[in-house]
Amino acid sequence: MTAHDARFVGGAIPLSGSVDMMHGSGGRATAELVQALFVRHFDNPMLRAGNDQAAFQPPAGRLVISTDGHVVSPIFFPGGDIGSLAVHGTINDVAMAGARPLYLSAAFILEQGFPLADLERIVVSMAAASRLAGVPIVTGDTKVVERGKGDGVFITTTGVGVVPEGVDVSGDKARPGDVILLNGSIGDHGIAILSKRENLAFETEIVSDSAALHGLVADMVAAVPGIRVLRDPTRGGLASTLNEVAQQSRVGLRLDEAAIPMKADVRAACELLGLDPLYIANEGKLIAICAPADADRLLAVMRAHPLGQEAAKIGEAVADDLAFVQMRTAFGGERIVDWLAGEQLPRIC
Amino acid sequence: MTAHDARFVGGAIPLSGSVDMMHGSGGRATAELVQALFVRHFDNPMLRAGNDQAAFQPPAGRLVISTDGHVVSPIFFPGGDIGSLAVHGTINDVAMAGARPLYLSAAFILEQGFPLADLERIVVSMAAASRLAGVPIVTGDTKVVERGKGDGVFITTTGVGVVPEGVDVSGDKARPGDVILLNGSIGDHGIAILSKRENLAFETEIVSDSAALHGLVADMVAAVPGIRVLRDPTRGGLASTLNEVAQQSRVGLRLDEAAIPMKADVRAACELLGLDPLYIANEGKLIAICAPADADRLLAVMRAHPLGQEAAKIGEAVADDLAFVQMRTAFGGERIVDWLAGEQLPRIC
Repeated sequence: MTAHDARFVGGAIPLSGSVDMMHGSGGRATAELVQALFVRHFDNPMLRAGNDQAAFQPPAGRLVISTDGHVVSPIFFPGGDIGSLAVHGTINDVAMAGARPLYLSAAFILEQGFPLADLERIVVSMAAASRLAGVPIVTGDTKVVERGKGDGVFITTTGVGVVPEGVDVSGDKARPGDVILLNGSIGDHGIAILSKRENLAFETEIVSDSAALHGLVADMVAAVPGIRVLRDPTRGGLASTLNEVAQQSRVGLRLDEAAIPMKADVRAACELLGLDPLYIANEGKLIAICAPADADRLLAVMRAHPLGQEAAKIGEAVADDLAFVQMRTAFGGERIVDWLAGEQLPRIC
Repeated sequence: MTAHDARFVGGAIPLSGSVDMMHGSGGRATAELVQALFVRHFDNPMLRAGNDQAAFQPPAGRLVISTDGHVVSPIFFPGGDIGSLAVHGTINDVAMAGARPLYLSAAFILEQGFPLADLERIVVSMAAASRLAGVPIVTGDTKVVERGKGDGVFITTTGVGVVPEGVDVSGDKARPGDVILLNGSIGDHGIAILSKRENLAFETEIVSDSAALHGLVADMVAAVPGIRVLRDPTRGGLASTLNEVAQQSRVGLRLDEAAIPMKADVRAACELLGLDPLYIANEGKLIAICAPADADRLLAVMRAHPLGQEAAKIGEAVADDLAFVQMRTAFGGERIVDWLAGEQLPRIC
């Protein structure tokens, strides 16, 4: 993303109309779009420098990098849009290393004919999410594909962050006896998307939980630097995330269904639609696995944060060479919680 | 990109068939694809760790981050493919800060129905480019969109790199009197893509110049740490890149057309097709701007590198508040080299 001078972009930029192939040319139209939308709304000195990369002095410590493509459909949904989701999603992936996110990049793939007003709405939303999170978007890229070769807009965000001294969070660190905590209700994002997509009306509107979790994580690692595992159960839901961790750590995980927070309307929607909430995507949730001695303190810290008020202990790790995830059901039975085998909800993020 | 255990992926992975919506689910099919393709071919410890982010201890110094989406069509072309291009493109954007690239991330947006054999071919090509460059792909992401909502495969790569002590390269540092150097012939990439796309046959096949330039840059900044500007003239060509620099630095730039290296068949193709080579994309070229006292030494260093054998002085910076780029033509005239105003070749990178 290179900035360009007011020579071309001084005065009013017409943001009516739609994305044209010229906006991807690398020439004047690209420069104008970058200036009128991205530089203006993401406004920060590193982006204004107008180079093809952003330079920064890293703080001391290990760094992390994470990337996520976002193809959510519809692009606007209750509780967010593809822009805020792209900011939150990558901030969260960085934060799940226990890290403090520092900077984001954003690469846009636009479809010819996409309304510029919609693009601006998305960019404004990204800018607001980035500003609220305190994580600036410092570099980027814009490509355009022909009508029918894309779907409005795809956004790939990449984040870098720094891991505080003494923190070493990884999916392979769960030990038998460890406690699994979850910061709140599951299924909100997936059901919000589905209800919008299928035009379903529930008694109350179900809103995505899309949120940046790095503030919560900062509180958690400050209180319990020895947290073993952090992971956000997005695509594939809680079930897939826990299976990943079980595999990485070579432990079994046991869940207590009755302890897993879920909103009544999300539960009702899942029952109505025949969906298993354990496989529904979340965008503002995390699981934390810690030593049993740390669990109460960690839970208290989570509950003290706005994004963790409903935090709960939902299970524990057990010795199991097969690394199965199992669940005590609300009716007292036991079931295997397997990987998502099919495709429950496409393009959820 | 999360790794998964041999429980699911042991034995032969069927890479026949095509991309399915399930491959984007976040469940078992995603895990299998990630393991069978990305982890296997990009193989490195950070990726194998299987977390949603990669962690590393940065070397001392300023860091840079750069990102680029790649939507080139066709995805296979003489001299490369979308995979090698995605590796080279981002390595080059990082290197244009004078930096040594350290790590890459890769985010794939796949279209349902895309042949898995083609995807593997691309991944193998990326892995080879990454290995040859010594810049590992340490984290990533995979999304799938429905048939007709994408175009085979889009790849967004992001790179981080470290700037050597004493190097401070930026587009705003050109001064009147500075010399403009170019490392070789222009137009190869754009004409290679176009000839493939339009099925044009020339006497000799025109091959993309796609290459990783960080080795050349390392030699250049070691010899002349005070290089003012480095920039790769990709989309929009030499003309757009020089206009960007002129704007950023508030200087005029004067080119000498006769000094700009160009292959005879590329020149012939441009004449035949009515294209101006100054606006054609390059993927293995850079311009360097340095103080006049450094120019001969820098040129010698460039010519000593395999990717700079045809390096040449192509012009100089002059005082000009209007920041125009002008060129002495081969016929002795003068012309303004303006920004690319339209769209010369869509989806060139």
